[in-house]
Amino acid sequence: MIKTDILIIGAGPTGLFTVFEAGLLKLKCHLIDALPQPGGQCSEIYPKKPIYDIPAYPEILAGDLVDRLLEQIKPFEAGYTLGERAEELEKQEDGSFIVTTNKGTKHHASVVVIAGGLGSFEPRKPQLENISKYEDNGVSYIIKDPEVYRNKKVVIAGGGDSALDWSIYLADVASEVSLVHRRNEFRGALDSVEKASELAKLGKIKLFTEAQVAELHGENDLSGVVIKHNDDSKENAYLEVDSFIPLFGLSPKLGPLGNWGLEIQKNAIKVNNAKDYQTNIPGVFAIGDVNTYEGKLKLILSGFHEAAVMCQYAYQIINPNKRFVMKYTTVGGVEGFDGSKKEAKKEVVQSIL
Amino acid sequence: MIKTDILIIGAGPTGLFTVFEAGLLKLKCHLIDALPQPGGQCSEIYPKKPIYDIPAYPEILAGDLVDRLLEQIKPFEAGYTLGERAEELEKQEDGSFIVTTNKGTKHHASVVVIAGGLGSFEPRKPQLENISKYEDNGVSYIIKDPEVYRNKKVVIAGGGDSALDWSIYLADVASEVSLVHRRNEFRGALDSVEKASELAKLGKIKLFTEAQVAELHGENDLSGVVIKHNDDSKENAYLEVDSFIPLFGLSPKLGPLGNWGLEIQKNAIKVNNAKDYQTNIPGVFAIGDVNTYEGKLKLILSGFHEAAVMCQYAYQIINPNKRFVMKYTTVGGVEGFDGSKKEAKKEVVQSIL
Repeated sequence: MIKTDILIIGAGPTGLFTVFEAGLLKLKCHLIDALPQPGGQCSEIYPKKPIYDIPAYPEILAGDLVDRLLEQIKPFEAGYTLGERAEELEKQEDGSFIVTTNKGTKHHASVVVIAGGLGSFEPRKPQLENISKYEDNGVSYIIKDPEVYRNKKVVIAGGGDSALDWSIYLADVASEVSLVHRRNEFRGALDSVEKASELAKLGKIKLFTEAQVAELHGENDLSGVVIKHNDDSKENAYLEVDSFIPLFGLSPKLGPLGNWGLEIQKNAIKVNNAKDYQTNIPGVFAIGDVNTYEGKLKLILSGFHEAAVMCQYAYQIINPNKRFVMKYTTVGGVEGFDGSKKEAKKEVVQSIL
Repeated sequence: MIKTDILIIGAGPTGLFTVFEAGLLKLKCHLIDALPQPGGQCSEIYPKKPIYDIPAYPEILAGDLVDRLLEQIKPFEAGYTLGERAEELEKQEDGSFIVTTNKGTKHHASVVVIAGGLGSFEPRKPQLENISKYEDNGVSYIIKDPEVYRNKKVVIAGGGDSALDWSIYLADVASEVSLVHRRNEFRGALDSVEKASELAKLGKIKLFTEAQVAELHGENDLSGVVIKHNDDSKENAYLEVDSFIPLFGLSPKLGPLGNWGLEIQKNAIKVNNAKDYQTNIPGVFAIGDVNTYEGKLKLILSGFHEAAVMCQYAYQIINPNKRFVMKYTTVGGVEGFDGSKKEAKKEVVQSIL
């Protein structure tokens, strides 16, 4: 059982900054995220896209924003349960919570904060009747560790940046990379399209356009796929493969959170924005894009504010009889749980002469 | 008469970021601040102090924060009335406002936003009965342009960073610099104390410690001061001077805003934080450290959020019949009033081969 003061569901920018605000109040955090790395959408969907409305950053790439946040929260030594989805919430008699993931990992915390963004991002799956049979036996929807594909025969399906970028990357790792796309046109960054084009000419990526993977074969593990052309007059191709990786993008789903008894409005969690961003379940807060209230703006900067406010109230729940006197970081500095201490240079008092 | 969509009172970080959020909504802003430069406390009181709790800045000097904000809002061409204090608010029949400063400058706007921080910073004045007679005739509390003192005889009073730094600076500009301080010990950055000490040894700063300016003399303009030692047995000194500059720090005052009919609680302006950060006067908003509500945190990051929310409602007041569809800056980019345009590189759609 993982134990923490504040359990944060969602490791996007809002969830990450919560670790900092909690840390200033000497509260420890643990984060759960369905994605394999922290940063949420910023890392998974658009790490190379610039954001222009983070205060005091005229321009910052989403991936860099996550890196800066990770650097900022480092002193507060958060724990992570990554690649797992928070599935079940149980309130204990003493008011604390146990949250269990889809893989059975259990977390115990005094306060739960849902910073789940638009929900957990689930891969869009192709409609192939026996695909679930091969999940984890040859079919993957997300590439966590590309080394898994070294010297293997890989089929990637999709026409966007992920399909292009991974085909390019795996061309040097896998023994054979085939890229299958329903249309002739790919949609991606200009240099990705050009690079993939070059590798296709060199024969390092086998290209099947206006085609799709229509059948999966194999006794227990996947061993081959049938590729069917849009043009019925063209003959199907059979490829021997070790892995099939459909990269059709991710779509956000509120998922199991929807069954926790939270008040939901328009696919978001209703909170008390006049006070503490608490949900209808005492001790469970919701901040960032996952919450809703009158005038809600789905901006990263709003998640930051909501995190700061929410932590003050979490403190009162966790330390019912203590009063915390907030000190500005400019005055009090930042004391990490790792023993680090950052603070402004102190002025000296001394006589001249 | 200066005309604008949103008149912002206070050019600290919150006021500055309001220009950005308003600009995304195509609204023009003008700022009034009693200080001679934008940035509020960050520029005036602690430009060289690090702040640790600006999201995604593990550490940033207050002065650099202001510089980054100024860069971010540059495309939106805000107007400034600096070195003047907003004195009077008059609501017009059509619901708009005229705000007049202490120097008589008039501003007309549909919406007024008070982002006044802890209030306007007023210099602490020494208790000398005839000092007001010499204000602007030899006595100043803030140094706006040091060139004014070239080849003049100057007396500075105070024992902190401002007194030290200006004595050091003016040692090369004025014909004579005297530094008067009530105690023997100065309180400032180590290098300032050391540098002042060195200049005192070289005779470039005349030092009077454990002493204070006790009398001001001069027909119309200031022409001399009497310096009295704490130790009564020491004889008073008479100095011929052109300027006397007491630098005893600034203290924040809500000031004339307090007479505008706003609901005040604990020296701050009550706002509706459940919705729009509007005050009890429709069309007048208050954001950042100047406002108050249940659970208010006086954090810069909260001012940023309040600015973003408030601008949405200002838009509705200014454009009652239009609907604004918010686009993420990552998707829609930022279009400046100066013709500039920043946006993410568009993905391309093209076939490979």
